[in-house]
This record gives sequence, structure tokens and C-alpha cells, in this order.
Amino acid sequence: MATSYEIALAQMTSVNGDISGNLAKMEAIANECKQKFPDVRLLLFPELCITGYILSETLKDVAQAWDGFIFQRMSRLAQKLQLYIAYGYVEKDDEVNLYNSLILIHPSGQCVGNYRKIHLTPLEKAWFTPGSKPILVDTDLGRIGLMICWDLAFPELARYLAVHGAELLLVPCAWESPFHEPFQKFAMARAIDNTVYVAACNQVGRSFPFYFFGLSSIYGPDGNEIAAANMDDQETIIRAMIDENWRQELKQTFYTMMNERRTDVYKGVEWT
Amino acid sequence: MATSYEIALAQMTSVNGDISGNLAKMEAIANECKQKFPDVRLLLFPELCITGYILSETLKDVAQAWDGFIFQRMSRLAQKLQLYIAYGYVEKDDEVNLYNSLILIHPSGQCVGNYRKIHLTPLEKAWFTPGSKPILVDTDLGRIGLMICWDLAFPELARYLAVHGAELLLVPCAWESPFHEPFQKFAMARAIDNTVYVAACNQVGRSFPFYFFGLSSIYGPDGNEIAAANMDDQETIIRAMIDENWRQELKQTFYTMMNERRTDVYKGVEWT
Repeated sequence: MATSYEIALAQMTSVNGDISGNLAKMEAIANECKQKFPDVRLLLFPELCITGYILSETLKDVAQAWDGFIFQRMSRLAQKLQLYIAYGYVEKDDEVNLYNSLILIHPSGQCVGNYRKIHLTPLEKAWFTPGSKPILVDTDLGRIGLMICWDLAFPELARYLAVHGAELLLVPCAWESPFHEPFQKFAMARAIDNTVYVAACNQVGRSFPFYFFGLSSIYGPDGNEIAAANMDDQETIIRAMIDENWRQELKQTFYTMMNERRTDVYKGVEWT
Repeated sequence: MATSYEIALAQMTSVNGDISGNLAKMEAIANECKQKFPDVRLLLFPELCITGYILSETLKDVAQAWDGFIFQRMSRLAQKLQLYIAYGYVEKDDEVNLYNSLILIHPSGQCVGNYRKIHLTPLEKAWFTPGSKPILVDTDLGRIGLMICWDLAFPELARYLAVHGAELLLVPCAWESPFHEPFQKFAMARAIDNTVYVAACNQVGRSFPFYFFGLSSIYGPDGNEIAAANMDDQETIIRAMIDENWRQELKQTFYTMMNERRTDVYKGVEWT
């Protein structure tokens, strides 16, 4: 297992409904990333980057099964570039339910994880079916937990993923202005609470009625920001090293919480 | 019920083992607080402020039942000043178990809450028996949750208190250098995660082998710091307004998490 590896986040603008345009842009970004930063092992795109952040009837037209043509195309890209690639998309199941989903593709081209957003925002609830299953993926980089955007605001999901061994949380986002401060605070909290890396890749630019502020960020397991993009309307690639040895060192010194959780107490109290 | 009221935190240095000296200092601080800031309704002192932060055999000598002479004296002070007073002390039960405890006294002089620290640090485990019961107190100021220091590092306890209606968390601390950054991050996280006020009152000054850095802080329900003390070795009183109307407004606009928790999911997953 890799104890140290580089990841990249592609902060990008998606055009609503323009799947082929967005896919072409993602391919161009991935190619650029491979060329400029050949050591990157995993590339994360934002929430719903394939379709744009749409909350309308159009969703039904842009939804696909996880293994539809979008996956086929991204799978070929992952193989060609020998990269882990993760992206957000509108998923449709056999019963035509729609999900706000995140897929993780192995450099072999295989889908190794597909997560359906558990914590939908109030506006999203009108369109998406909520997921109900936390997803952990074992890779040759380590154990990776999958989350999406507003999931960051809930301590429970990240805690569950970390208790079950997640070392890095991938969190594609479409987080809108003026809420950049809570975005940063929630992402930081999930990192330090669980002594895990948090990679939050946000959309950037206007998508009426929203404006996505970018500020894609990677937090270390001590809650410190180790890489962050701008807020000035620009697409960009940010990168950071994930260092599992350092994370383990933190967990054995000051950040000993996982060994000190009072599960006897939590089991005994009513949460709801 | 008060929808808006002022609280104060007494960042102080305690002398290890000098109960009468520490008590006299606390009385002086409380009197000063009442004189300078007559609108303050609740005054919080640090963790183990009565005895100093001791981890040695001395603990057995300085421990008391919750209603011992320390309580009697602080109870009279609360009545005289017509203040809620909260302070950390070493508690001894009938079986001579020792607890790292926090007591909350009503302006009538009655004890309205006594909390035994649930999350002991690795060093504390050798001396104290861990508590196992979250404590919520209904007051005419609102519902108050009690926590102590390292409890801040665990999302579960604050979540439990908030789910059960806590509006303000009182958190006396003896948090040592060089860990002021995680202190701030954890306190902030507990506030924004749960849309509650967090009042963290730290000791300041040397207590071999520790140095307590002060930096006592009050965070608003949006995770922003609304008052903070210095880190320059000084005793001080900081204050902030607790505004329940504003907190409710936040909970009904962006910070809607308490209504969106997926308790169906959390119930179904194994936490341990």
C-alpha cells in the first residue's frame, strides 16, 4: 500500500445540461493534469460536474445508469492516463429514481465505488432520492471514504467512515456563495475530528440561481489546510501529498481520539 | 425564558493544591465581574480551577463530595451575586472514586447540574473514574449542556447534547501548550456542527509539566469566534451575548442540519 501519494482536485465550471461539453472539458483537464503533474495518482472533479448543478425536469434527461456512456468514456480516460478518477453525476437506477452520485474509477478502468449522497439539501430533496449507504473503497492508495458536499455538515457520516478505517475523504461539492465560511469550517472539522485527509473539490462560477465560489481545499488530519484554490472565478488544479505515516503518527500522539471514544456511552444514549 | 443574556468566562491561574487560595481568587474575580459587568448572568471558571490541574496522589486529599465545603462557599457566592456560577473540581463519591467534574450553581444557591468528565485524556485515566452520563440543565437562561476540555475533541457528546436541545455548551478546560490550534478548531467545530454557542474557559499559566495557554473563547452557533482572551499569561474576564433568537434564525435558514439528520442511516450502521 502506498504510504505517500499525490492527489489533485479539478476546480471547474460546468455548463448546465451540456454533457458532451463538460466531458470534453474534463478530459482536457485530466490530460493537462497528467502532463504537468505526472506523479498525481488520483484526480477528483466536483459534484454533478458532468451535467452542471441542475435542479429541474432536465435532470431526467441527463441521468444515466452508473455504467452508461459517461462511465465508459471516463473509464477509458482513467486507463489511458493510469489515474484514479472520481466525479459527480446524476445517477438513474432501474426504477428511474435519481441520485446525486459520486463514482470512483480505478486506473484499470473498473468502477471501485459508487456513492449516492445521503444528506440532500432541502432544495435537492424535491429531485433526488437520498442514498442510505456509506461507501468505503479499498484501493492500492489506502482506504478511501466517499461523501458529497452537504454531507460535510454532518459529523456522523465522516465519523462512520473514519471508524471503519477511511484515511482520505473525497468530497466533490457544488457549494454556493455566500457560504464559503461554513464550507471551510465543516471541511476542517471533518478532518480534525477524525484525523483524516479531506479533499473537497468545488464547482466555480455561475449556475443560476447559484454562484459556486470555488475555494477547493485539501485539509490535513490535524485540520490544517494544506492546499486551497482561489475564489476568483477561475478553473484550476490544486494538489497535495497524502502521507499515511504522518497521519498514523498524529493518531498515536495528540490525536488519540479514535482510541478514546466512549462507545459504551454512545450506545446507551438516544440520538433521536 | 431569556432569549438574550450575557455570560462571562474567568480565565485564571490556579495554584496546585491551594484550595483556599484558589477559592479566594475565584471570589475576588466573581465580585469584580459583578461590579464591572452587572448584566452578566452566568460566570464560568476553568477545569479543576479549585485545586489546580493535578495528576498525583494529592488528588485524594483535595477531592470532595459535590456538596462539600467548596460547594457551600460557591453557593453562597452565587446567592450573594445573583449569578449562575460554574466551576471545575475534583469530586469524590461515596466509594471514594475520583471524578473530574463540573458543577453549575443557580443564583438561588442550588446545584442544578453536576457533570463527570466522560472523555478523560490518556494521562487522566490513571487517576480519575470516567463519567458516563451526558448532563443537560434547564435554566431560566435556556437549556445548557455540560462538557469538560478533551470532550471537545469528540463529536458525539456535543451532538447528543444538541439533539436534546442544548443551546449553550459550557466547557471548562485545562488545555496545554502547544495545542492551542486544535483547541480552537475543536471548539469551533462543536459550535458550527450543532448550531450552538460554545463557551470554553481555559486555565492560563504554568502547572508543571504543563503550560496552559489561556485563549478562552466563546463561539457563536455559526462557528465564528465572538470573544477570545489573550495567550500572554494573563488572567482576564471575557464576555459575550447569547442570543437564542439569532440561533433559531440560523437553524431555520442555512444551518438546517438538525432537521436533515439521517437517523435512519445512523441507526443502521455499526459505529464500533
